[in-house]
Amino acid sequence: MIEGVKQQKWWGWGEEGKAYRHEDKPKFAPFVKKMVGVDITLPVKPIRPFSSLEVPASQLSDELRGKLNTVVGGKYVQTDDETRVVHAYGKGVRDLIRVRNGKLGRVPDVVVYPGTQREVELLLAAALEADAVVIPFGGGSNIVASLEAEPGETRQVVSVNMGRLNKLLEIDEESGLAHIEAGVLGPDMEDQLNARGWTMGHHPDSFVWSTLGGWIATRSSGMQSDKYGDIADICRGLTMVMPGQVLTLRPLPSSSSGPSVREMVLGSEGRLGIITSAWVNVHRLPEVRELQAYFFPTYEAGLKACEEIVTSDATVMMARVSDPLETQYIMANGKKSGRVSSLANKAIQKLMLQKGWDLEKIALSFVGFEGSANHVRYEKGLVAKVVKNNGGLGVGKGPGTLYDQKKYDTPYIRDFMLDRGLICDVSDTSTPWAYAAEIHTLILDRFAKAMDDLGVRGLVFCHLSHSYHSGACQYFTFAIADDSDNQEATYDVAKRVIQQSFVDFHGTVSHHHGVGEEHSPWMEEDISPAGVYIQRKLFEGIDPGNNLNPGKIVHDGRPGVSSNSVDA
Amino acid sequence: MIEGVKQQKWWGWGEEGKAYRHEDKPKFAPFVKKMVGVDITLPVKPIRPFSSLEVPASQLSDELRGKLNTVVGGKYVQTDDETRVVHAYGKGVRDLIRVRNGKLGRVPDVVVYPGTQREVELLLAAALEADAVVIPFGGGSNIVASLEAEPGETRQVVSVNMGRLNKLLEIDEESGLAHIEAGVLGPDMEDQLNARGWTMGHHPDSFVWSTLGGWIATRSSGMQSDKYGDIADICRGLTMVMPGQVLTLRPLPSSSSGPSVREMVLGSEGRLGIITSAWVNVHRLPEVRELQAYFFPTYEAGLKACEEIVTSDATVMMARVSDPLETQYIMANGKKSGRVSSLANKAIQKLMLQKGWDLEKIALSFVGFEGSANHVRYEKGLVAKVVKNNGGLGVGKGPGTLYDQKKYDTPYIRDFMLDRGLICDVSDTSTPWAYAAEIHTLILDRFAKAMDDLGVRGLVFCHLSHSYHSGACQYFTFAIADDSDNQEATYDVAKRVIQQSFVDFHGTVSHHHGVGEEHSPWMEEDISPAGVYIQRKLFEGIDPGNNLNPGKIVHDGRPGVSSNSVDA
Repeated sequence: MIEGVKQQKWWGWGEEGKAYRHEDKPKFAPFVKKMVGVDITLPVKPIRPFSSLEVPASQLSDELRGKLNTVVGGKYVQTDDETRVVHAYGKGVRDLIRVRNGKLGRVPDVVVYPGTQREVELLLAAALEADAVVIPFGGGSNIVASLEAEPGETRQVVSVNMGRLNKLLEIDEESGLAHIEAGVLGPDMEDQLNARGWTMGHHPDSFVWSTLGGWIATRSSGMQSDKYGDIADICRGLTMVMPGQVLTLRPLPSSSSGPSVREMVLGSEGRLGIITSAWVNVHRLPEVRELQAYFFPTYEAGLKACEEIVTSDATVMMARVSDPLETQYIMANGKKSGRVSSLANKAIQKLMLQKGWDLEKIALSFVGFEGSANHVRYEKGLVAKVVKNNGGLGVGKGPGTLYDQKKYDTPYIRDFMLDRGLICDVSDTSTPWAYAAEIHTLILDRFAKAMDDLGVRGLVFCHLSHSYHSGACQYFTFAIADDSDNQEATYDVAKRVIQQSFVDFHGTVSHHHGVGEEHSPWMEEDISPAGVYIQRKLFEGIDPGNNLNPGKIVHDGRPGVSSNSVDA
Repeated sequence: MIEGVKQQKWWGWGEEGKAYRHEDKPKFAPFVKKMVGVDITLPVKPIRPFSSLEVPASQLSDELRGKLNTVVGGKYVQTDDETRVVHAYGKGVRDLIRVRNGKLGRVPDVVVYPGTQREVELLLAAALEADAVVIPFGGGSNIVASLEAEPGETRQVVSVNMGRLNKLLEIDEESGLAHIEAGVLGPDMEDQLNARGWTMGHHPDSFVWSTLGGWIATRSSGMQSDKYGDIADICRGLTMVMPGQVLTLRPLPSSSSGPSVREMVLGSEGRLGIITSAWVNVHRLPEVRELQAYFFPTYEAGLKACEEIVTSDATVMMARVSDPLETQYIMANGKKSGRVSSLANKAIQKLMLQKGWDLEKIALSFVGFEGSANHVRYEKGLVAKVVKNNGGLGVGKGPGTLYDQKKYDTPYIRDFMLDRGLICDVSDTSTPWAYAAEIHTLILDRFAKAMDDLGVRGLVFCHLSHSYHSGACQYFTFAIADDSDNQEATYDVAKRVIQQSFVDFHGTVSHHHGVGEEHSPWMEEDISPAGVYIQRKLFEGIDPGNNLNPGKIVHDGRPGVSSNSVDA
């Protein structure tokens, strides 16, 4: 562990000692039992001790070690087993399954912690001179296998932890721009901005354990993107260390200077170089911030309302709606005395029943408002009309407040579930509005059939998370009861059926989780073979030796996925 | 001339027979006389007859002609002199100077008019097999030398006029997306959309003589981009014919599938292939559309107001402000009984003087509003507060209505001026807000000095045209009195001083006119040498034979510009 650089558990999400608890949520255990037949109240096996892992020895040469020591100082060149294992994977459930089972893959030979951009330049030069593979590492929360070396990699593997580059360098208060080092974690960045009255407004689910550089490298989106934009909108300039040179893109609101190099770095996942800092749009903290909750009689009605909101005169900060199963999940996950469980209170239930709603089909929605008090009032009025037109029902601020408090906790539930033989993960897509309802139905159907075929119990639910003029992102969460030795294969089936459905039904392979190796098999279906060809030529042009995070994005498919075809 | 494909004059902008008139604008001639010493009321020399041009013979081989005939039909393979000359240049003033002087450069050997995407595929294959150079041609309005072959080009040059691909193919009414062929001119496209109740909302100055494909290939922006976005936002999917393959990007609201291939095609100016169709965001025609005019005591106050508007709760369709000289120009260009000239009426003048304003320093602003009547009222209220805080004065809808009617006419004035020995053109940049006022002042100063050094009279004025959260585009228009044989050199000095100032003072080389050959000398200063290296590798990877519009964007400088350095 390096002082000042936070590190996640080797076996799971987040900090050691922090975990999900079900005991204060009395409806949760019965919900899980009913849905997938697992009793989560039973005692579980403890996580194996780290010492039981067979960690491959570092293959770092004395020569490269010597050079790296010279560049960053010996203290910042780590080759101990735990540091290397923590940097071997991201935090997809497939990563967690593998690491818990001692399947460590091609563990990096060294983890380097540069403290300046110049050190990044020098360490990259040293690594390339040694023909090593270089993999940038931010918060370590990637779920698409973008942080791991290829299994057959025979060259030395250098993981570059960017955590020491974590400072807000400058705010241009007149322009609303901040220059920030790329290795900063979400909360540390917002703390530095908030202290001066600013916010970036970028809050992905991974916020606590992801970095500015990671967001840029994977084209991340945050929960408030309807107002603040995706990271591709927020990031206006950047610096990236490339082989033998440094790319410097000054902050510009918009430009027509040829094919956008900024947009080539966005989503490049380390294949073009290492992002060291970025200029981002920042906003004054809003006078009022409010999340309002609504219920709709069906998910389709909620989708329609979200579409009408973003194409109306309103400009909300967030428009989100959960499908019926996710709505049940959220309500089941409320504390005994909590606000969410009180949603299901008698008065509201009675009203819904009076309206003729089927309580199994209701959809919970959150809409976020920001601005002056007057503006928030005005916008709430516009949204109220849309909600009414779509048969919805406002239930006030309470649930939204709770959502805000708990919004980063979901990954801890995943570890809790995995302890109990439940494989959970997420996958997201975006489609035009015309296909939003259809793709949701089809994925639920295909997923159920795939689970039947496997003979396991599983569920998938979804929410609309990000809205745009012509379409939206839907975010799917799945859980499968499988405590066998086949967890990886089971996960692969689930993942395949979802990803294949995305590209089959007008969706992208990933709205904001990137490609890595995990999504690479579907890239030709997403952006057409010519699109993949263009990306390949770009990577080959910049990195002819294939040293920069090889195998990511453009790849013939991740090992273990023999085929991307699904019999639907 | 091909039936159904509109063609501009060989010597100037737009349709034969349409021209600017000054006679009904009594203040204009005195304004020009005062500013640059030219009497525009004197008779002018007529344009030389086309027959006086020495047009180089077509070098099209019989073999390639035969293949092209087979692909598109002989009617659509044109080698006559006038067609070839019309396709030799865009419509920058440097192009106009050259063509009027009979300096035709490397005229294309053939102009081909494909009628389907398949024909584009086949003609590209035939051209590449013959090792020909291929230059896509939309409306022909490019002003950065992106449509011309390199002067020393020894290979056959094929200009591909996309004008027959001009149909609206499909509207996805549920998503607000339209699939449109790339060769459609602005008015033809909007007519087809409007007929079904939709608009794309993209209105660049070149609207009448530019195409969807051209907008995408040059990263265009329209006057209403504050609401509708730049073309990079509007274009959600596209088809591009590449050597040996076709790129198909389905329409997606947002995606994280690696470096954005969509954003590589945007701004590619023919260097990656030929764009044949695109999926674009379209919007329902607004219930209310209103342009309000305001005066500010200074340009700086107007800039500040625009910045405050876009960072306020308001979401306007346009926020535009002209500097004092452009304000004078607009007022001088008003008809005798017109609304703009009435701006200068006694009552308003009196009010301004009472406020202590210097009438030589006032800045005219237009702010556009769209939405329901109620929403427009609400937004006008928000803007009124900002205007008041910045000392501005509302003068109603009249001037905006006139602006709307005349907004596409400016290029005709340029021809009128050139007839009278006045070299006029435009150049635009974007900067963060912090540098907006500074760059304006510095360009005015540098330009004046450069004209003094040349011993000619010239002027430059400017308006803020597009606003973003962290900055804005400023659009400069210059005019220089020079009826000598040195017009090209004089233009080069003016262009150089402006472009160099852009990159010196935090601006981009071009906000929405693209790069071509004209702006290529400043690209390393704009996006850093590593950025140009990335673009170069991309082009080389896709087009190793350098057949696709060679020399554009990435280039060592356009011929005739020996140095990009300016002694400021």
